[in-house]
Amino acid sequence: MADLTCRVAQFVDERDWDQFHTPKDVAVSLSIEAAELLEHFQWRRPEDIEALLADGDYRNAIRDELADIMLYLVIIARRLDVDLIEAALDKLEKNRDRFPPEQYRGRAHPG
Amino acid sequence: MADLTCRVAQFVDERDWDQFHTPKDVAVSLSIEAAELLEHFQWRRPEDIEALLADGDYRNAIRDELADIMLYLVIIARRLDVDLIEAALDKLEKNRDRFPPEQYRGRAHPG
Amino acid sequence: MADLTCRVAQFVDERDWDQFHTPKDVAVSLSIEAAELLEHFQWRRPEDIEALLADGDYRNAIRDELADIMLYLVIIARRLDVDLIEAALDKLEKNRDRFPPEQYRGRAHPG
Amino acid sequence: MADLTCRVAQFVDERDWDQFHTPKDVAVSLSIEAAELLEHFQWRRPEDIEALLADGDYRNAIRDELADIMLYLVIIARRLDVDLIEAALDKLEKNRDRFPPEQYRGRAHPG
Repeated sequence: MADLTCRVAQFVDERDWDQFHTPKDVAVSLSIEAAELLEHFQWRRPEDIEALLADGDYRNAIRDELADIMLYLVIIARRLDVDLIEAALDKLEKNRDRFPPEQYRGRAHPG
Repeated sequence: MADLTCRVAQFVDERDWDQFHTPKDVAVSLSIEAAELLEHFQWRRPEDIEALLADGDYRNAIRDELADIMLYLVIIARRLDVDLIEAALDKLEKNRDRFPPEQYRGRAHPG
Repeated sequence: MADLTCRVAQFVDERDWDQFHTPKDVAVSLSIEAAELLEHFQWRRPEDIEALLADGDYRNAIRDELADIMLYLVIIARRLDVDLIEAALDKLEKNRDRFPPEQYRGRAHPG
Repeated sequence: MADLTCRVAQFVDERDWDQFHTPKDVAVSLSIEAAELLEHFQWRRPEDIEALLADGDYRNAIRDELADIMLYLVIIARRLDVDLIEAALDKLEKNRDRFPPEQYRGRAHPG
């Protein structure tokens, strides 16, 4: 993760793209990439998707979308000085309290 | 990252939530979380956002949204057997070729 | 529709909100509202949604989200001097050519 | 509007696409289309967008995205038996009470 953050920083610096990466514009891009991921599942039933996932091209296209989301996440986290792993672990701890297993086991979680 | 993936897996297992985490439904949740992040910037100009970022509550709320996106990203990546760091590094390599610095320096990147 | 456009214009004028309604910021709000609509279907299977739709509160909450999307659509269309009905009819005509019934009958449409 | 709803219904019937148009799947498509609209404004400053809007192709591409959102809105509204104009007027009335002009004049509205 540290290595990825470093390489992203270098990539951005080499292109002088920091000036475009306001938190708002990166958040807009994250939304757009999340929608591009969603497009791969549009109109498809879970069983159609499972079948498609056997296809290498389909899997790779999805892997690419996940990568795009990850890259923008690294960019905005770096900008806001957030440690993504730490933030995720903290949130998981909060969720652990909000959704006790005995109460939520097998029940769809809200939100 | 390996530790985070592990803890997310454990969290999901303890609640038996794997059954809800179809790729499509997690992608839907990613889109919703991306929009929640965007809400913090809605109607705001870059300079208003910079000013707000001095406020601890505002920063923490945003950190929480980034964590939510990260958690869903880990969930879907695990489901699809994708290594997020590796996928992001591969994509960065592709982008390096698509956007040569000499050509894109200081010019807004497309997409 | 003409009446709705008129009332939206009056509502915006009375609050002097035109200054906030740049096309980009209204598009951001449209994305956020679309995600809020999606939230009502998050983690739910089609059959659960059908059952929930019998509930008046659930239906009304969804009706409200559709109204929000419609209102932002009217705001951005007015700003860009687009006639929504005419634009939709034109697009429908294009789709009629792109997706001939004999070829697409009962087959999920792309995009 | 009544005419548009009618033609959309006919278009869908001719292709037997009603089976795909569950509320959840249409909401997913609305989110995707909202993101496609947003793409036209991605990384761009308000002044760049104003300049681009003088270009006919750019305007038409945006008009097309608004049309797509409108068409899906008509499809989901019809499915849920919601009158879009009426719903929007009702919501506007609610917003009139929530945001009194004397209090919100010239101040960015929340949400």
